[in-house]
Amino acid sequence: MSTQKKVAVILSGCGVFDGAEIHESVFTLWAIAKSGASYTIFAPDVNQHHVINHLTGEESGETRNVLVESARIARGKIQPLSDYKAANFDALLLPGGFGAAKNLSSLAFDGPDCTVNSEVEQALKETHSAQKPIGALCITPAVVAKVFGQVEVTIGQDAGTAQAIEKMGGTHTKTTHGEVVIDRANKIATTPCYMLDATIDQIATGAANVVEATLKMV
Amino acid sequence: MSTQKKVAVILSGCGVFDGAEIHESVFTLWAIAKSGASYTIFAPDVNQHHVINHLTGEESGETRNVLVESARIARGKIQPLSDYKAANFDALLLPGGFGAAKNLSSLAFDGPDCTVNSEVEQALKETHSAQKPIGALCITPAVVAKVFGQVEVTIGQDAGTAQAIEKMGGTHTKTTHGEVVIDRANKIATTPCYMLDATIDQIATGAANVVEATLKMV
Repeated sequence: MSTQKKVAVILSGCGVFDGAEIHESVFTLWAIAKSGASYTIFAPDVNQHHVINHLTGEESGETRNVLVESARIARGKIQPLSDYKAANFDALLLPGGFGAAKNLSSLAFDGPDCTVNSEVEQALKETHSAQKPIGALCITPAVVAKVFGQVEVTIGQDAGTAQAIEKMGGTHTKTTHGEVVIDRANKIATTPCYMLDATIDQIATGAANVVEATLKMV
Repeated sequence: MSTQKKVAVILSGCGVFDGAEIHESVFTLWAIAKSGASYTIFAPDVNQHHVINHLTGEESGETRNVLVESARIARGKIQPLSDYKAANFDALLLPGGFGAAKNLSSLAFDGPDCTVNSEVEQALKETHSAQKPIGALCITPAVVAKVFGQVEVTIGQDAGTAQAIEKMGGTHTKTTHGEVVIDRANKIATTPCYMLDATIDQIATGAANVVEATLKMV
């Protein structure tokens, strides 16, 4: 009789251009549930960097909160990231979207010189110190590289982001759809998802693969 | 050599309490892609009935547009519902969420006496007249029943909504997770999804089943 694995998921809003990428987030939750594990969703209680009208691509001038908007994907079942304790979970998962590079960090603006939200940084470091695995999708492997430096990750094929990862001390490995890079020493699994020009079913496969790889390291 | 089937999907915002249910929407798109068909996403260019803070469940007082918010799920690739022509598609799919009962119709407020957004009504009637199938998830089968009257649908087990469907002239059949009711004469396939207390992987199954049933009637 195995105990159900408990997975924490950090979201960064709700929508690819200013928050968590919705497809990646949903397929991450689905992959966790499908594997028989349970999930708890977290997000930092901070305002989004900005709000992008996803129809026009332009800034809307509105103010929205990362925790409140992430609650849309979570159907209201979400906790502030300040409540996260690595001791309560077996693994940590980070879906992508520009929110990771705009709200969880300043990567979209500052590249390798970016800062990472202090709660996100602490959650990652606490999880790593507890020798529990971390799975990261899309652009979030770059945030993981910023926090840990010498880790091996993938964001797919994007040369600029790969270069930023190397500047932050990480090692970047090229991948294509659904492939996962596993840094076993650091228990970090990463996959490119929408960092590649992907279809929605390729995102489902990528999320399933990185969740499986992460949970295997528990 | 079969031609790729073309499916239109109507969204009603972005978030279960005031828009399209995000998981149902994503799994509907995924199921369409997985089956080898293509999708085009539409939403009416109207303001949401209201905006609900999904963390607290309270009205926020903000104004948001259904097309603009639906674009978050669509990653910007979306068209105003006024552009929909049944002649260009093989099938029409409607994911659920309160947006269907608040933005696409007034069902949440007026029950069986509700009105349906004129573009939604026209899209449904035009599709039906062209003898093309319609698939509906969660609460949207009640909107379909309002438009067509004598159709057989399911919203799961909710007695109040089932009664409303019967008052609007429809026939309600009880179902549980992943089950699909098919009205072959009217080419309408329906499934309950989050009208039941469901897990996210049950939603994926329900969406896959209703998309499969709908595409089989093409």
